[in-house]
Amino acid sequence: MLLVVSGPSGVGKGTVIGRLLQRRPDMRKSVSCTTRPPRAGEREGEDYFFVSPQQFARMRRAGELLEWAVVHGDLLYGTPRGPVEQALADGQDIVLEIDYQGAQAVRRQLGDEAVLVFVAPPCWQALVDRLRGRNTESEEAVTKRIASAVTELSHMGMYDYIIVNDDIQQAADELEAIVVAERANVNRWDWRQLQQRLLSEAGE
Amino acid sequence: MLLVVSGPSGVGKGTVIGRLLQRRPDMRKSVSCTTRPPRAGEREGEDYFFVSPQQFARMRRAGELLEWAVVHGDLLYGTPRGPVEQALADGQDIVLEIDYQGAQAVRRQLGDEAVLVFVAPPCWQALVDRLRGRNTESEEAVTKRIASAVTELSHMGMYDYIIVNDDIQQAADELEAIVVAERANVNRWDWRQLQQRLLSEAGE
Repeated sequence: MLLVVSGPSGVGKGTVIGRLLQRRPDMRKSVSCTTRPPRAGEREGEDYFFVSPQQFARMRRAGELLEWAVVHGDLLYGTPRGPVEQALADGQDIVLEIDYQGAQAVRRQLGDEAVLVFVAPPCWQALVDRLRGRNTESEEAVTKRIASAVTELSHMGMYDYIIVNDDIQQAADELEAIVVAERANVNRWDWRQLQQRLLSEAGE
Repeated sequence: MLLVVSGPSGVGKGTVIGRLLQRRPDMRKSVSCTTRPPRAGEREGEDYFFVSPQQFARMRRAGELLEWAVVHGDLLYGTPRGPVEQALADGQDIVLEIDYQGAQAVRRQLGDEAVLVFVAPPCWQALVDRLRGRNTESEEAVTKRIASAVTELSHMGMYDYIIVNDDIQQAADELEAIVVAERANVNRWDWRQLQQRLLSEAGE
């Protein structure tokens, strides 16, 4: 399963995903590449692959990106295709933290194999406070993120699930519940094999 | 939401539902009526409404049953319509423990408002051992339940979710996850109201 998590900047997607991964060590997060500069504390290959616009363009042309998008006006974000396809081939669940354009691209390419989750704020002010409170970016960058947030919110309806992040713990519980429930979904596991075995054991 | 839980006799549906209700006091279980005699310890109005075949026929003719089915060859089971419709009108989630025929009838009447979950055993022998271990029924009744189990198992594919009850605690966790995830499902809650409020707070 490919779990796509989107939501406006500052909504706490990263923290919620972090909690999920702590509880589900069998899941992995896909590391995106981006042309935006690293924030304080961010590590290459763990938070992002930080690449130049030229490197990004080369990867894109070579078909190495599962999805990519221009975000906040001028920044490029993309998901390397290789690790995602490898994880899915290994039967491992993988999490993508991407924007609505990326989510659309993933849905087009993978259909229902992807589960799309949107994380929404309980109110607009909470989002703005978090973005300003970050203090790691210029006023201009914050203004662009606020504009992007409006765009993200206007695309909520294309997702499979919407979680309101009023409380981190509860939001993480809900995200984990979505993973557990989707694994039990008849369209997502080979129940026919179990059914045949049970009926054959019953002598049918 | 109407949560329908089916599965062969002896699979432990009742126990799994019991655990769910302990953790989710906001959910209620619908009490079925049946023409089968009470087992030791079963209480009228709590486990079932125990009715005569004549009473059952009267309820059915009066349209008082949401669904009803002949099970194990000659026993009648049915879901009183009133309490279910009242709970749904009150926005309360309700659980129905019914067989595949009942699940089909509910799907026909309520469509996707109903969530259908099938509880499967990990192996056939586990089921037969539980049915025989119950020791509350005649050999003839057990034989009929075993025949019904095969019929139930052959209808697994019509459910939305399939849970394997290998471990009661884990099965209850999965059932609870399905409830939590379905509440976050875009088709099941009024996210448009949240979206409009957020966008209006943002000045859009």
